[in-house]
Amino acid sequence: MSTLIDELQQGNTPDFINRIAADEGIDVRTLTDKIISGRVVVCRNNRHRFDPIAIGEGTRIKVNANLGTSPTQCDFDNEIGKIKAAIHSGADAVMDLSIAGDISGFRKRITGECNITLGTVPMYEAMIGVDSPEQMNIDRFLKVVRKQAEEGVDFMTIHAGLLRKHIPFAEKRVLGVVSRGGAIMVQWMRHHQRESFLYEHFDAILEIAREYDITMSLGDGLRPGCTADANDAAQFGELEAIGELVQRCRAANVQVMVEGPGHVPLHLIEENIRKQKAICDGAPFYVLGPLVMDYAAGYDHIAGAIGGALAAWFGADFLCYVTPAEHLRLPTTDDVREGVIASRIAASAVDLSRQNPREIRRNLEMSEARNAFDWEAQERLAIDKGKFCKYLEKVESGQKGDSEHPCSMCGDWCAIKRIRKH
Amino acid sequence: MSTLIDELQQGNTPDFINRIAADEGIDVRTLTDKIISGRVVVCRNNRHRFDPIAIGEGTRIKVNANLGTSPTQCDFDNEIGKIKAAIHSGADAVMDLSIAGDISGFRKRITGECNITLGTVPMYEAMIGVDSPEQMNIDRFLKVVRKQAEEGVDFMTIHAGLLRKHIPFAEKRVLGVVSRGGAIMVQWMRHHQRESFLYEHFDAILEIAREYDITMSLGDGLRPGCTADANDAAQFGELEAIGELVQRCRAANVQVMVEGPGHVPLHLIEENIRKQKAICDGAPFYVLGPLVMDYAAGYDHIAGAIGGALAAWFGADFLCYVTPAEHLRLPTTDDVREGVIASRIAASAVDLSRQNPREIRRNLEMSEARNAFDWEAQERLAIDKGKFCKYLEKVESGQKGDSEHPCSMCGDWCAIKRIRKH
Repeated sequence: MSTLIDELQQGNTPDFINRIAADEGIDVRTLTDKIISGRVVVCRNNRHRFDPIAIGEGTRIKVNANLGTSPTQCDFDNEIGKIKAAIHSGADAVMDLSIAGDISGFRKRITGECNITLGTVPMYEAMIGVDSPEQMNIDRFLKVVRKQAEEGVDFMTIHAGLLRKHIPFAEKRVLGVVSRGGAIMVQWMRHHQRESFLYEHFDAILEIAREYDITMSLGDGLRPGCTADANDAAQFGELEAIGELVQRCRAANVQVMVEGPGHVPLHLIEENIRKQKAICDGAPFYVLGPLVMDYAAGYDHIAGAIGGALAAWFGADFLCYVTPAEHLRLPTTDDVREGVIASRIAASAVDLSRQNPREIRRNLEMSEARNAFDWEAQERLAIDKGKFCKYLEKVESGQKGDSEHPCSMCGDWCAIKRIRKH
Repeated sequence: MSTLIDELQQGNTPDFINRIAADEGIDVRTLTDKIISGRVVVCRNNRHRFDPIAIGEGTRIKVNANLGTSPTQCDFDNEIGKIKAAIHSGADAVMDLSIAGDISGFRKRITGECNITLGTVPMYEAMIGVDSPEQMNIDRFLKVVRKQAEEGVDFMTIHAGLLRKHIPFAEKRVLGVVSRGGAIMVQWMRHHQRESFLYEHFDAILEIAREYDITMSLGDGLRPGCTADANDAAQFGELEAIGELVQRCRAANVQVMVEGPGHVPLHLIEENIRKQKAICDGAPFYVLGPLVMDYAAGYDHIAGAIGGALAAWFGADFLCYVTPAEHLRLPTTDDVREGVIASRIAASAVDLSRQNPREIRRNLEMSEARNAFDWEAQERLAIDKGKFCKYLEKVESGQKGDSEHPCSMCGDWCAIKRIRKH
């Protein structure tokens, strides 16, 4: 099988590339060049039939929502509900992080019922039935990668850049290792006193990725779990190794993106993004948050929206949402919705600041609708129609263009109304 | 009566200045110099006995919450509840924007029950009983300013920088005038075909301000109401006039700050703040949001937190909250809480990025509590204990240092737990 990069190098342009170019408002040649050079990825398993999206330089900022079962909460209908809520709220991709129940059956439902880019962390499923990380091995891992590839997974997080030499740096931290995949690999390396099997056997992983045209998402097992650990030797050490793996993916014509933090205070976000782009030669950057402070539990979607907006402004391409439940519990459907919309606001704000025509239009139409007291148009344009209506406590509809509007903020004192009288 | 600036110039240092300097971690001399030069204000009516705060260069970012009655919602107990919720959530100041009911009685309750910096927009109360803005005049206005000064109001928003010559610029906008005070002045100037009475009689206003040592907050009647109108000729034209008024306040030894937008896309925030600081010679900048997009109604506190963080990062000093109810309805107590905390996150994130020792300590303690699975400490340090507990669905307390913790996110997969086993 040939990968998308193979095809584009040979001058073949799949239909979906034309569609993406039109959707993004960039020309096909530019998009093709960016995919070939690795600055844009289109995550798409060649067994997954759907409309893929582009992530990276010159494209709109995309948003991911994490979902999936845990041993304590294993209701697949509920998880499908969350995925639908995420998509409805504007998620561009979802990651299924399920670690309990009939995961394969769930994947079929996701690719069947939900027409969206799907990512996984294969290590999670590989760990099921394994008593402790020490028993993990490359064969078991590759088997899961292949199984998930067969199921149509479009991108996979692989924590192959976390090496033995980085562990001492992590041990100096306030909050050591907070990535679940990273913690498993540290435990494995400590026990076996050997180099990471993901790193040692990276070519075998790449082989499967080539076969199914899966996009590698190089995980940051040492992402900082608190602002005090941000941009430290552990994080940037792993980033150097990830930079090397980016080149190995590219040499294999396998698409690759890079995952990033985490918790980063405002003043270190720019350095964080610029380093990633430099060390990883422009590979798309996929950040979790980042959270600009540590004690906003219950409101981490807001701390993440601030960090995400700044990160995207400085060059991050793909925002993994953070929900208000972060650090406290598995997210509910409502948490998923709140989390996606917070990231969506960060993403759209950055797209607007880059003069994205679609964003300019939507913002302008909303502003014109406000000026015209057109509440129907405002509802249609609002980021969340449901919440818009709930807040407006709208009793009647059909009030288009009616200046006797339902907002209770100012009443007769409404400035817009006042000025329009003249 | 002498003003705070008079006193400081004469070498007298009131106790509250020593207290503020200690609280902010800056030395008294520096604080004094900044107040005298107008780069920091301490809003404090000389009839109001309370612990005032400093706003401006080198001090922590402060947060304001707007509250008050409207003709449709006039329950003062409810408004007092909102003020208490705002203070509990971390507001540093409140503005009472009441336009209905026994406002004077309410003010007494605020200064009595709530030990916090209090601001108003005197034009609102001045308009009560007036059929239309055309009937407003300087005598009526000054009477209200004096009455509010007697009631102990610490800072007052005065829209005196909006001049006749600015109106044509506002008329070219997508969303004209969205400031209630601004709209009243535009209507008055259009009708009378005369210059703003606030501008013409600014000295009379200053005289009262001197008498009660009230801080002037120069309102931006032409703040952009949508991102398309940001940083336009209307806004910057008014800002030039405000810059002149800043100098007039300083010449009278009356403290002064400047109000700003509003709706500003990400890429225009830096210019907006830098212009204000340049034109107004370093006067403290008090921004509303700014909102980085227009269609986030229901989530405008998040759009405002992103804009507020960026604005403060570039030099804004004082953030007026935006609640999720913005553009839709008067905020409820819950909306007030959500709005204050969103602004608080923006403010604290910027303080952390500037190495504020208190912020560093609280973030570090939270991170250490996470590492130690000390859930009691986490609850104590969390930005909102109530929400922290609600999310945690905590059944039992007294689990300090217990690694069998109540978070349902990862269970046995918890990375921190995993690594700590070794």
